[in-house]
Parts: sequence; structure tokens; C-alpha cells
Amino acid sequence: MADQKIPNWLDKRAFLTPNRVCLVDGAVSWTFRDLNHHAQATARRFYGMGIREGDFVAVLLDNSFRVPQIIYALQYLGAITVLLNIRLAPPEINWQLQDANCQLLIYDAGLSDTVQAMKTDTIGLNALSYDCLQKLPEATVSLSPRIDLDAVHTILYTSGTTGRPKGVMLTNGNHWWSAMGSVLNLGLQMDDKWLICVPLFHMSGLSIILRNVIYGIPVIIQPKFLPKAVNKSIQEEAVTIVSVVSSMLARMLNELGQDRYPESFRCMLTGGGPVPDSLLKTCREKQIPVYQTYGLTETASQIATLSPEYMDSKLGSAGKTLFSSELQIGGEDGRKVPGEVGEIVVRGPNVTQGYLHRDSEKIDAFRDGWFHTGDLGYIDEEGFLYVLDRRSDLIISGGENVYPAEVEAVLLAHSAILEAGVVGSESKTWGQVPVAFVVKKIGFEEITEEEIRTFCREQLAHYKCPVRICFVAQLPRNAANKLLRRKLAEWLK
Amino acid sequence: MADQKIPNWLDKRAFLTPNRVCLVDGAVSWTFRDLNHHAQATARRFYGMGIREGDFVAVLLDNSFRVPQIIYALQYLGAITVLLNIRLAPPEINWQLQDANCQLLIYDAGLSDTVQAMKTDTIGLNALSYDCLQKLPEATVSLSPRIDLDAVHTILYTSGTTGRPKGVMLTNGNHWWSAMGSVLNLGLQMDDKWLICVPLFHMSGLSIILRNVIYGIPVIIQPKFLPKAVNKSIQEEAVTIVSVVSSMLARMLNELGQDRYPESFRCMLTGGGPVPDSLLKTCREKQIPVYQTYGLTETASQIATLSPEYMDSKLGSAGKTLFSSELQIGGEDGRKVPGEVGEIVVRGPNVTQGYLHRDSEKIDAFRDGWFHTGDLGYIDEEGFLYVLDRRSDLIISGGENVYPAEVEAVLLAHSAILEAGVVGSESKTWGQVPVAFVVKKIGFEEITEEEIRTFCREQLAHYKCPVRICFVAQLPRNAANKLLRRKLAEWLK
Repeated sequence: MADQKIPNWLDKRAFLTPNRVCLVDGAVSWTFRDLNHHAQATARRFYGMGIREGDFVAVLLDNSFRVPQIIYALQYLGAITVLLNIRLAPPEINWQLQDANCQLLIYDAGLSDTVQAMKTDTIGLNALSYDCLQKLPEATVSLSPRIDLDAVHTILYTSGTTGRPKGVMLTNGNHWWSAMGSVLNLGLQMDDKWLICVPLFHMSGLSIILRNVIYGIPVIIQPKFLPKAVNKSIQEEAVTIVSVVSSMLARMLNELGQDRYPESFRCMLTGGGPVPDSLLKTCREKQIPVYQTYGLTETASQIATLSPEYMDSKLGSAGKTLFSSELQIGGEDGRKVPGEVGEIVVRGPNVTQGYLHRDSEKIDAFRDGWFHTGDLGYIDEEGFLYVLDRRSDLIISGGENVYPAEVEAVLLAHSAILEAGVVGSESKTWGQVPVAFVVKKIGFEEITEEEIRTFCREQLAHYKCPVRICFVAQLPRNAANKLLRRKLAEWLK
Repeated sequence: MADQKIPNWLDKRAFLTPNRVCLVDGAVSWTFRDLNHHAQATARRFYGMGIREGDFVAVLLDNSFRVPQIIYALQYLGAITVLLNIRLAPPEINWQLQDANCQLLIYDAGLSDTVQAMKTDTIGLNALSYDCLQKLPEATVSLSPRIDLDAVHTILYTSGTTGRPKGVMLTNGNHWWSAMGSVLNLGLQMDDKWLICVPLFHMSGLSIILRNVIYGIPVIIQPKFLPKAVNKSIQEEAVTIVSVVSSMLARMLNELGQDRYPESFRCMLTGGGPVPDSLLKTCREKQIPVYQTYGLTETASQIATLSPEYMDSKLGSAGKTLFSSELQIGGEDGRKVPGEVGEIVVRGPNVTQGYLHRDSEKIDAFRDGWFHTGDLGYIDEEGFLYVLDRRSDLIISGGENVYPAEVEAVLLAHSAILEAGVVGSESKTWGQVPVAFVVKKIGFEEITEEEIRTFCREQLAHYKCPVRICFVAQLPRNAANKLLRRKLAEWLK
């Protein structure tokens, strides 16, 4: 298309179905007109503060109606939302704020301790609580009823094998095409209602508050994941779709006991790796339709999905690639044949065009128009994807990604540590948890596990901190001196 | 998006859901794998005949499975389908074939009389029946699994007020965005099944065979509109959606008598002007959900739709503009306010970029990025569209557009006719039928109505031929000598 502009999603939705319920968050219930009203008012406040098209505004918010309000306000101005993980440690957040060169940070009053610990003034950043923002006067500005599909909408940070997190740039178009791929996969019913119990600062949660506006369906926002509350909502509030990760599903089923979900519940959208067979068995018995997915922040949520009809015959598979996307298994020597293991490479209008300020890493990740995920897998004769290994050493703990290299970098910053290696250890509750192997420096033999763990907690989000520190004389390395994390995994056993 | 390519729709659909039923046409029942197999084989035959990317291939086919087979075959090669109205007279078809510079014409054996009358050899065109095409060998060619959203997919001819038909260029992207606008409006259920009883050479029918592949739902193709057959299909074959025009709906309800449609039937998508109140009353009583639409070939089918919930409160309205499109009421002096009548102007990624070989008319129709429809209407305070007049003098007869200027041009070609003016006369069965007012040349006083009607039938599709010729001494004209068709309409009464 010559013209890459389409109507602003919220503006259009509020025009089409102003009186439909848009979101329910505890006692707050907003129609699409309400959300539009609040988002536009907030946009005018942002404008009054000097926020303009192309500016970066960081958002540190708990799950609530405030998140869509702020994100849609920024979209009205063409400003970019930098979504921060509220579980990160202050130094981690600071690093991201500086990397994205944010003009402003909006935070929940409940997170003011984190913000104070960040010392935002030292990095010259304006930090404002949501409540203070709401008290600002509304400036006079004409808000555009159109958005540019090529404009960046969100920055979400994700780490790689190389240490420091990278800001994934997601455009309006990336989110739009992801929403279209999903609707062609899951369908869209007039009575659909999506329950949010995953973080809104993750791609999984973010995608829902974009889709509900594009689709015109309500969402129920829960502040955090509590299995009982989720089950109650599904059973009593006519929820039809829920997004979860495997470990959440296990806890929900455990809490559900002998109960069942209503027949109108039609989709348990499950990310974060294949659902274990034992869990699938329970789902089969209770007739819970599980859609297992594979996706990355870089693909603006899921890019492959396994329909419930295949959950038996294609056990362990993440299904087929969504309608407007492509997926192949690549290798050094080109495309792999069915059954052959290689790197999962993807392309499509939902796939990011790159990382913020990381042109060299973009060149590395994008070759011949394909994004190289770093994940290993294969495709069977019928085109079903099997993911073997997430991004080489990625640890997935309770749905959160933990990159060993990032944790190792923090460990190595400790004056007593010479070498460090981090791997995932299996956990019934979280799927995996990080465990560290550490070589002490000479002269620092007295350092204790507890001292190191305290150090980690100051620098890292809680879920990234090693649950165990194993002191060893040396780490397994190959001839090129590269750390062999697989060996560490064997040591664990 | 930098990348305007997405997976070929049929290739992707056949990959995702190979075994789902794609189409049912009498005794023929094809899965998506079947359609893909036949389309690919046909693409190889076309390739063997020398058809390449960007070539124009005309299609003169009755409603049947052959239409999607040919259209998807051509899409695989990046060739452009010129969809011909089978009701046109041979000279009309000839004109379009030459205008589009078609390399090839594919026709149904049942239409060979029309093709013979066209004398295609005199215009240097290769004409081949569908059956002969199927007997050709398949060439070896690698078919691209991707399509370019900016590439032209179809040419559909539409006339204007200026006489000769113009070829509307519709790209893959136009059709795609139209399909997305529709799915966000109507939803998409796993059990959806769309009945086709409108012509596949019209935008209304074409849009269905594109959507069913994109959405992954089956269509039932009926060779022509027979109210009884349509009702039977809705009642016995679990049809959920039907596309019709007002006059068809009237005949269906008449045939239905005291019967009803099953509850699973969820959408009567109705084009061709507002549904009369008496008809809506019957639909209300029978709980038939009527979606009244406004659309043009240039917008790749409907661009506005009135949901059933508004069919009482917004009587006569065509509803609101679909999600990714925009619509305004324009005037000489800019945008009109609610309630003010003006020209309906539209824009969006579903709107054509122009007419084939008609750059000057493009400039005329597109101003400031908006396509000027020539239709008159207004928007109420809530944004509901009311269409007052289709394209100034357009006559809609049984869902077919009849442009007075085109019929007048044929009349004026008759040696006995000095002046001619054509207007629509109300018809219970067809909505409107064309009636001509004619001034004879001196010396030709003996010419009869029947002679002129016979002349018209040779030159024009049957539905365009005036049902009555009124001989008059002179036609009403304004000071600039412009024909006043409104006066003619008054004369009729």
C-alpha cells in the first residue's frame, strides 16, 4: 500500500462501539468511550509536559486499567511506550531508561520505593506518579485520528546470550498484523471476553490490551496471577479466552480440583514451552481447549499455535505458523528438511525490524530478511513445529525469561568472583529456576553463598537471582575457552 | 512495513487446514488441499501457455468452483484476473478485453456462443474454454509461496457518468484489508459457512471466495440466484452467512412463507441500497439479522455496515465505516458537518489506487488522498451514514449497476436517434429498470420502439436495455445544454 496510515485503533473503536464494555478491573468498569476519554485527556496532559511524536516515555505500572490508558494516550501523540518490567531491580531499570533515552517515567504510587532507589534525578529523568500525572492540566492539542503502521509503538527489553538487554522495537504494524494473525487462528465471537492474569509489561499481556480494542471485546484485568481468582473469573464472569504459561496452568488445574470450566470457555492460550503430558491429560478430561503457542517479543507475541484438535497426535508441538507469517528451520548451509534440527528463523509483518540503537545486532539477527531466533527446533512432515531449546541457554522461570549471560555478568561484577556460569534447574512450581556455579578469586575463600545472593538481589529482579550458588574449582570450557553450559546442566544432575 | 509480502493465501490455508472443506458446488466438494492442488496445476498450464507475472487474463465464467480455481491459479503467477460480467453483450466484452489488453480469455463451454459472437480472433486474442485449458500439459515452474500486497490482483469494470466502463484495479492488499475490515465487523466463528448466490464476477461474490480462503471457512456456490434453492440451503446446510441485495432478500422472504431460518444463521449481508421498511419488518418478525451495507467495487466490497441492533433506530442508514477505513462527507468547500448532504468520500488500504490506463480520471476521482465516490449522503450526529443517491444517476437493477450515460451512448449510435436520455423506473421485482426518452431524427419518423430495443439487445447486456422507449419532441436541458435526468424522472411519474 502506498498509504501506511489507518485510523487510530481506540479512536475508531470508540466511534464504532462506544457503549460496549472495554475493560473491567476490580470496581472499575470502562466502556470503549470511557477508555478513549481517559486516554485523550492523558494525551493532552503529556502534551502539556512537552511530550511529542517520537519521544520515549517509560512506564512502570502494575497490572491495571492505567496501563491501556497510558499506552493509548502515548499512541495518540505518536510517542513511544517503553514498557518496564516492574520486577526488575533499580539498576536494571536505570540501564533501560538510559539506553532508550527516555524523557519521562510514569510509575504507580505503589512502586515509588523502586523509583526512589533508582535515583532518577541523577540520570536527568523526570519521574511522575500516575496520580500526579492525572492532576496536571490538559493542554490544547488536536489528536490525530490516524496512526502510521511503520511508526514504533512500543519498546520491550529482552536479553540475549550476549549480556545486556536489547530494546525490541515494535511498530503499530507489527502489533496490527499480530492481531490479524491471531484472529484468523482463534476466530472472533461477539461474546468473547479475554482474562488478563499475565503481566501487561510483557508481550503476552500487551497483545491482549491491543487486541481487545481492535476486536471490540472486553478484557478483565487481574492485578496478579492468583489461581483461585482466575478460576473464579472463568467460572462466574463468562470469560472465553485466557493467556497463561504452562506453570500457571498447572496451578490453576490444581486449584480447580474436581470443578470444571463452563462450556463457553473456548481457549486456554498457553505459552512458555510445551505443556507437559500429565497436564494435557487433565485438560482432556476436563475438556479444556489448550492452544499451545510459540512466540517471542520480537514476533509481537505468538507466531505458531497448536490447535486443541492436535494436542494428542502432535504431543510436544507448538503447531503451525500463523496466517501472515513464515517460519523455517535454518542452518549454516541453508534450509533444513523436515525432521532435521536447526535454528528457527521467522519473517512476516509482525516481526520486529530490529533493536533500539543496536544496528550491529540487527545485522546479526536478520539475514536474508529472516529473523534468527536463536532457538532450536524442527518441523515434521506436516509442517508442525517442535521447539527443542529456547535461545540456546534461556531459562524460563514462571513465564519470565532469564538469560544466563545477564546473571553471570552481575556475578562477575562481585569482587570475590573469578568465574561464573548459570544454568536452569528444574522446578515443579516455576518450570525452571537459575542456579550458579562460581569460582572464587584467590584471597576471597571466605565469601558465603548468602553474601553473593544478597549482592544479586540488589542488582537483579528476584526471579533472576540464583536459588543456589555452587562453589567449584573451575568451570567446564571448550578449547576456545567458551563456557559449556550444557556440562553445567549435567553437573546439576 | 518495509516488507509488503505475505504468504500466498491459498498456499498458506492449504498448509494450515488442508482437510477442512473449502467449497461445495453441487456434487463437487473440495477441501483447501483440493483447491490448492487444482489451482497449482492450472497455474502450471497457464505458465506453459506463456502467462507471466503482470499479464492480464480475462475470465468469462458462470458461478462455479472453476472461478476460484482460475483466480488462485493466476494469483500464483502474479498474473491479473480481468473478471468479465457474463451478462454483457459481445461488443461490451470486446471493448473491455481490448481496454485491458488481455493476453488470454478463459470461458465456460456454456458461454461459447457469446465468445463466437465476439470474434476474438479479429482482436488478436487467444480464447480457450475451461475444459480445453484443463487438458493442457503442466509446465515445470516453481510457484511463489508469497504474494506482494501492492501487486494488482483483479480488474473489475465499472461505468461512470462519463460513458465507457473503467477497469478498477484491486491489489492483493485491497482485498486483504477488506477481508480484515469485515472480520472485525462480523466476527469469525469456527462453524461459519458462507452461501454464494451473487455473481462471482462482481465484487460481492469475489470477496467471498477470497475471504473463505483467508478465514478458512467453507463456501457453498450456487450457479444462480433461485430463492427456493437459497432458502433450502440455509435451512438444511448449516449456512451462517449469505450475501444478497435488497431485491433478492424480498424474493427469499416471499418464498420462505411461514418458515424460518435456523438459529445458527447469523448474517444476512445486504447491499444495493437500504432495505425497505416493510422487508425489515418481516426480518424482525423472523429474527433474521440483517446487516445493511454500503460499498463500491472501488472499495473492494462494503466499506460501511449497519449492525442488526440498529436496524430500527437507524432506519435507512448504511451504518458506520469499517475498522481500517475512513469516510467523510465532502463538498466544494471542504468537509460537511453532521446532517449536511454532500459527496461521500472514502480512504483506506481497501480503496483502489485507480483505474487501468485512466490517469486523468484517477486525478479526478482522488483528491487529497480521498476517493470521491460521486454518491450523495450525510452522516448523523453519531456517525451513521445515510446514502441518498448512488453516483448521481446510477440505476440499480436487480443488484446490477446500469449507468444511463452508457445506455444513452448506444442509443445515440442508432442512425434514427437524435437525442437520448435514460432514467430508472421503479420495479417491484428489480428495484429499478431503465427507461429511455428518445428524440427521432428528421426523416426517421417510422422507427418503432421494438426496432430500437432489438438494436440495444445486440449492444448491451439484457439488464441494461430500456424496458420502454418513450418518443418525445425534445429532452429537458439546462442552460449549458446539459441533460436534466431528474426532469426525465418527473416525466415518468
